[in-house]
Amino acid sequence: MAEPIGPISKLTKELSKLPGIGPKSADRLAHYLLSGDRTVATSLAEALYNAVGCVKACTECGNYAEGELCPICSDTKRDPSLICMVETPRDIDALERAGFFKGRYHVLGGRLAPLEGVGPDKLSYAALVERVARGDIKEIILATSPTLEGDTTALFAANLLKGSGVAMSRLARGVPTGSSLELANTQMLLDALEGRQKFT
Amino acid sequence: MAEPIGPISKLTKELSKLPGIGPKSADRLAHYLLSGDRTVATSLAEALYNAVGCVKACTECGNYAEGELCPICSDTKRDPSLICMVETPRDIDALERAGFFKGRYHVLGGRLAPLEGVGPDKLSYAALVERVARGDIKEIILATSPTLEGDTTALFAANLLKGSGVAMSRLARGVPTGSSLELANTQMLLDALEGRQKFT
Repeated sequence: MAEPIGPISKLTKELSKLPGIGPKSADRLAHYLLSGDRTVATSLAEALYNAVGCVKACTECGNYAEGELCPICSDTKRDPSLICMVETPRDIDALERAGFFKGRYHVLGGRLAPLEGVGPDKLSYAALVERVARGDIKEIILATSPTLEGDTTALFAANLLKGSGVAMSRLARGVPTGSSLELANTQMLLDALEGRQKFT
Repeated sequence: MAEPIGPISKLTKELSKLPGIGPKSADRLAHYLLSGDRTVATSLAEALYNAVGCVKACTECGNYAEGELCPICSDTKRDPSLICMVETPRDIDALERAGFFKGRYHVLGGRLAPLEGVGPDKLSYAALVERVARGDIKEIILATSPTLEGDTTALFAANLLKGSGVAMSRLARGVPTGSSLELANTQMLLDALEGRQKFT
């Protein structure tokens, strides 16, 4: 049999490295990109080069930034005394889409996962401690994932900042708003009961 | 709320143009490509540029080629008198993976779909007629899709080549080999009954 020619095999291989894209999807995408006038392929390549070249980490919070600071850290209307500690810049996007939070962020760069080799030195705890030491911060919301690993990651930050005088909180958790009780699992219901709030 | 910065929005937009990738998947992919050491993003951009720049259409059959001719048309061991007419280069990949066919191909570039503006002038019928006129071809297998549009596309070629003395055939169709009868739909069963073959 005749093998697909080199540049197509290479493109298929690179596409199949993306999460959620297997060899069959990669093959389909490669052929799609090469059919027709190919502007989609060229624009995608340009967007990739541009993003890799221009997108840096904000020196203050670790969020994606084009310059020194990200749009949130350079926005003087955002409260610098209230920090929301998140795992990744994607979490910031989710919170910003909701649009309620008026403070700033701190991106850890992941969560503690010792079995995968992610220890505290791989996350930006030190930068957070340093921000706190500068003295502007009054409260930190430890908004890591509502999972065991996320809890551990939040606890580690809480221990590091113990005695700093900064108030610390964790996002409320329980039954997902808008869902129904019969779809909630045991852990959700346990959290919901433990965290029940006074009503009227 | 703070919008994602320009290069990320642009990358997400370009990714969401790909088939099967919606806005959520595009967002996830963009963040994946920008996290970590970014070599995946750079390699993908290079592979895209390289494929767009190097992959041309074979001047003989329309398959993907790096030079003038595709690997199949430049392979002297492939029978030039037997041509398999297919819709796209992907169909060639499928037939080559099966590995039985020892002839050459002709890529139409799609199928007739008047409602989408794809008339005979958009497909490479003329090049096929010209290849036949050169006189080397003895048989053409009209291997367009086993659908109504594929049938129309094959019929159009058959009409164009009527009187050329070239034998023409269409791929056998019926119940899919390896499947079970209870999964076959009405059209498959109809084709299977109409095309039944003498046994022993």
